[in-house]
Amino acid sequence: MIEIDCDGHRSGVQPGSDDLLHIAKRLAAGKLTLKGIITHAGNSYSCKSTEEIAAMSRQERDAAVGCAQRLRQHGFSCPEVSVGSTPTAYFADDLSGVTEVRAGVFVFGDLVMGGLGVVKPQDIAVSVLTSVVGHQKEKGWAIVDGGWMAMSRDRGTSRQRVDQGYGVVCNLDGEILDDIIMVDANQEHGVIAHRSGDPKKVPDFPVGTLLRILPNHACATCAQHDRYHVVDSGGLQVNAVWPRFQGW
Amino acid sequence: MIEIDCDGHRSGVQPGSDDLLHIAKRLAAGKLTLKGIITHAGNSYSCKSTEEIAAMSRQERDAAVGCAQRLRQHGFSCPEVSVGSTPTAYFADDLSGVTEVRAGVFVFGDLVMGGLGVVKPQDIAVSVLTSVVGHQKEKGWAIVDGGWMAMSRDRGTSRQRVDQGYGVVCNLDGEILDDIIMVDANQEHGVIAHRSGDPKKVPDFPVGTLLRILPNHACATCAQHDRYHVVDSGGLQVNAVWPRFQGW
Repeated sequence: MIEIDCDGHRSGVQPGSDDLLHIAKRLAAGKLTLKGIITHAGNSYSCKSTEEIAAMSRQERDAAVGCAQRLRQHGFSCPEVSVGSTPTAYFADDLSGVTEVRAGVFVFGDLVMGGLGVVKPQDIAVSVLTSVVGHQKEKGWAIVDGGWMAMSRDRGTSRQRVDQGYGVVCNLDGEILDDIIMVDANQEHGVIAHRSGDPKKVPDFPVGTLLRILPNHACATCAQHDRYHVVDSGGLQVNAVWPRFQGW
Repeated sequence: MIEIDCDGHRSGVQPGSDDLLHIAKRLAAGKLTLKGIITHAGNSYSCKSTEEIAAMSRQERDAAVGCAQRLRQHGFSCPEVSVGSTPTAYFADDLSGVTEVRAGVFVFGDLVMGGLGVVKPQDIAVSVLTSVVGHQKEKGWAIVDGGWMAMSRDRGTSRQRVDQGYGVVCNLDGEILDDIIMVDANQEHGVIAHRSGDPKKVPDFPVGTLLRILPNHACATCAQHDRYHVVDSGGLQVNAVWPRFQGW
């Protein structure tokens, strides 16, 4: 597949460039099969509103479908037109001509998508289950047994309007505890506190309390674990264990 | 083991507090065996000089050994005195009374340790092997097939005097290419460029060029992979494959 750069974000051929046809000719000369066009609108993660995301989705689709059409007009077969990115997948209003949408975070949602307005935080479908193992009461800290090795170092919300630290804290039922976040993380420990830092605003979390942490970036957090434990809402009852495909 | 907070960094009992003896008494009353004292001088990562690190090492040792002595003076057995942190392990000049040093990055070194003056960058013994898969020549970018999923999101050097981006670039032989770093990373792609951003200062890296990337933080980077490939200096010859213990 020929990658095109639909938004100037990363890699690929510029949609209007001669490289597109040049590569297709080289592939044909080499008796290789051109399967299609692929792109990823990574800049959608920097959008400030859902209107901007919808516009980015049109730009992504138009660039990919336009390149496929150019190839076909020049006699090349181009069966696949593959686009990506979770924000554009949610807000696409026209995917005609597209044959594949590759969206990863789409499966679970995460806090970055929450900050973008793509999902509601309470609908995020993956969390890291931690236990309170200690306190630094004068600092307003509860310490849990999962730090950045459990959450990943991804701090995607640090560039958004609301910085969610290393994650938003929920009770075992998955209900968000208002303004309680993982304010900092060490390798194996997370620091749970009130967003304001005010020790008086931190609930009493006895040692052993189970807390769920919603991730900044589902891809990065899930990659730190080798399996999913599938639970009903509210429960510790594990109904299934799903192994993960690791790598990329 | 009773954790003590030797540097106000994270968790544990304050060395001078009554909690130390209180916990030891509770353990004895519960017929549990107190094995010893454990601490980790995490603040050593924020030191600005090797002199500061050496002082932190003494502080860590003195706090841990002092607590062990207090316990013994009050009739408790305290066979183990465990300290940690790679910087303090390197610059310790007195470990008398210590029975265990837990230092992780110590094994490989990394760029954060390089920035602290603990190791030389050319002595770092772990890297991520990547291939050049594309270019954005007008931006001065070479794109490699490893991004933050390969390097981790850890940007420990961003708080140091020299920000090494997502890693320092070496040739296949492990020789550092001056001022060529991974300036940015997407999930699966790394952006290789000159530190200055000047496109004219980037060597020609044809597609397929193999580049080794030295990590900011060995713990975080290694955790993104399930095995080590052990090679001789200079070679692609893999002499051994070491599976990793995952988790924490």
